[in-house]
Amino acid sequence: MTPPRIDRTRLVGRLETFNRIGALPGDGNCRLALSDEDRAGRDLLVQWMRELGLAVTIDAIGNIFGLRRGREDAAPVMFGSHVDTVGTGGRYDGLYGVLAGLEACHALDDAGHVTRRPLALVAFTNEEGSRFAPYAMGSLVYVGGLPLDEAYAIRGIDGATVGEELRRIGYVGSAQPGWVKPHAYLELHIEQGPVLEDEGLVIAAVEGITGLTWTEVTVTGRSAHAGTTPMHLRRDAAYVASEIAVFARRLAREIGGHQRCTVGRIELYPNLVNVIAERAVLTVDLRNTDAVGLQTAERALTDFLNSLAAQEHVSIATRSLARFDPVTFPGEMVSLVEATARDLGLSCRRLPSGAGHDAQMMARICPASMIFVPSVGGLSHNVREESKPEHLEAGASVLLNAVMRLAE
Amino acid sequence: MTPPRIDRTRLVGRLETFNRIGALPGDGNCRLALSDEDRAGRDLLVQWMRELGLAVTIDAIGNIFGLRRGREDAAPVMFGSHVDTVGTGGRYDGLYGVLAGLEACHALDDAGHVTRRPLALVAFTNEEGSRFAPYAMGSLVYVGGLPLDEAYAIRGIDGATVGEELRRIGYVGSAQPGWVKPHAYLELHIEQGPVLEDEGLVIAAVEGITGLTWTEVTVTGRSAHAGTTPMHLRRDAAYVASEIAVFARRLAREIGGHQRCTVGRIELYPNLVNVIAERAVLTVDLRNTDAVGLQTAERALTDFLNSLAAQEHVSIATRSLARFDPVTFPGEMVSLVEATARDLGLSCRRLPSGAGHDAQMMARICPASMIFVPSVGGLSHNVREESKPEHLEAGASVLLNAVMRLAE
Repeated sequence: MTPPRIDRTRLVGRLETFNRIGALPGDGNCRLALSDEDRAGRDLLVQWMRELGLAVTIDAIGNIFGLRRGREDAAPVMFGSHVDTVGTGGRYDGLYGVLAGLEACHALDDAGHVTRRPLALVAFTNEEGSRFAPYAMGSLVYVGGLPLDEAYAIRGIDGATVGEELRRIGYVGSAQPGWVKPHAYLELHIEQGPVLEDEGLVIAAVEGITGLTWTEVTVTGRSAHAGTTPMHLRRDAAYVASEIAVFARRLAREIGGHQRCTVGRIELYPNLVNVIAERAVLTVDLRNTDAVGLQTAERALTDFLNSLAAQEHVSIATRSLARFDPVTFPGEMVSLVEATARDLGLSCRRLPSGAGHDAQMMARICPASMIFVPSVGGLSHNVREESKPEHLEAGASVLLNAVMRLAE
Repeated sequence: MTPPRIDRTRLVGRLETFNRIGALPGDGNCRLALSDEDRAGRDLLVQWMRELGLAVTIDAIGNIFGLRRGREDAAPVMFGSHVDTVGTGGRYDGLYGVLAGLEACHALDDAGHVTRRPLALVAFTNEEGSRFAPYAMGSLVYVGGLPLDEAYAIRGIDGATVGEELRRIGYVGSAQPGWVKPHAYLELHIEQGPVLEDEGLVIAAVEGITGLTWTEVTVTGRSAHAGTTPMHLRRDAAYVASEIAVFARRLAREIGGHQRCTVGRIELYPNLVNVIAERAVLTVDLRNTDAVGLQTAERALTDFLNSLAAQEHVSIATRSLARFDPVTFPGEMVSLVEATARDLGLSCRRLPSGAGHDAQMMARICPASMIFVPSVGGLSHNVREESKPEHLEAGASVLLNAVMRLAE
């Protein structure tokens, strides 16, 4: 019997077919969580799971599971990722981990291989969080970190709620989130950063996930005439929002290390050329793999907002959209990924993840880790996101073989 | 025969009635140029003009004229303002000058007074420029400063063009812009700034209008993942836009005097919490009553944009939305306003205008000036814009009497 092997052509073909859903003009994809495009993607995934004989279960937050029977009725080895994207997403972020998992099942079928433990391929709901915060919502609800009714009530940037949209697209499943406790969880993903490419490596064994704080900041000033209002009498929400974005950059440089600070969203009201802005709503994304560093950044932001509000005579209100401490994956899981890559003859290093992932939530209920493959130019959350076919195959092979080890 | 007198109750009543059109919930008005609300306001104005026996003429850019016959067929004395508003406008900006002009005609009717010269009450199209730049479009076209076909082709912030919207609301008139050359033009307006109130004065005789540059700036960076992209590798359009807004504030302080710098509009794409912005579109509004100061500000902005583009590895494109040199009104027109106020027993000072007005364009074809009345708290382009009834009456009286002098 030949050992199970990943079929690169089949994997790349499924990625291409799936990415016709939500394709943007030119390049890239938009399958925002619980949108019509997300539904179409889910429908295709469920169809493909059934074609491979996987038993499909959907839970009440819309997470999709495809179960492959094992020789014994034990806790399953779970693997997967998500199929939603950011507004200007690429072709691999999330989807690759799910379709590589599907390909792993297909490869096991081709080889007639049945693992001791059952396998559970999963696509979690709303990993990106672009439409509904927090991110990794499906896995967070799954591990009990966010009550279902609270998740349903969350309102997105377009005003719709998670509950309404989940019902609308028909993905409120009957299973309770947390319905099956995995033996282990493994997630394959593109790196979304430049390190592997820079170092000419193929695989990263992910040691942990950055901590993160998302804060929505609302600045309320006073709208007034841009020509007649003296500079010193202004209460300019646009100016204050801009000072916050400039501060965020400075803060990241001052703290250094793995600190990242990003203002990705700014909305002004009334947003007109000749009117001093009355109100600004912006988001501040702070991340650090070091818990103390993250707390330092959070405190510095709070202090800055307080002093700026006083100085500019505006009111500043903040709302937490997400907060997660850094996660460290168990050493034996990281070593397993490393050993699997080495046995396949693939170059490998350990790496922390600067991005959040569902694995970060799953680590609360079972041993978890991740496998990264290189991103061309380090680009992600960008329509030009790219990974080479040979790297896609290599990552899927590491996933397949690591899952087989975990399942014996 | 009693001299013509302004009826305060009638003036305030017409303002209240008119402001039911485009009323915002709570307070304030939104009658953006060429919107349905603008059309409804125009319809009411035309009805009221006709009720007072004024001969209504509409020109091809939608300016509305109400002609009152004089004893002789000479060049008319023109007065008025505009009835469109910014997105969060108040109850007086523009509308007051038009309805006070209507009240002046009504007062002349009541007194059975016919002036030697004809009178022409005017409401110019799109003075605000919030939806379609440049501002004062109707008067600019009227004086030959902007060809009609170019004006028609201008695209607004919602994608519609001036020509389409003017046709849609039925205000493409048959008269050629510039069809009548006034003997003089006088515009009554709220100050929109704090000076008269601060000094306890009732009337300002306006000496001139600030020069102004509106620039739309488009920053193109590279969207990337907010967690995985090292700070020094970012090409962050949101950060660059914010630096520009912060620079604008600093520039105004450095140049000093009457320099004003405002970033009132910022739009990011994709505008998501966890994505470094690919593109930012923002506007920079520079104003100075001094021509040299304005040029200094323009050069400093250009230099800053160039150095910022190089430093942050983004491309920055600019588009001029409007540019007008400062205007100085003729001394005899300013003196006439001062003398009229003094003869009515009203306190008065000379003042430059930090806001643009239709009078600034009309000054190209005839002697022009303006009359200001106090704004409570100096607020304008704000739903809480307010002027006291006695000041509204005082300004209308100055307008009525100055027009009578100009028309003899």
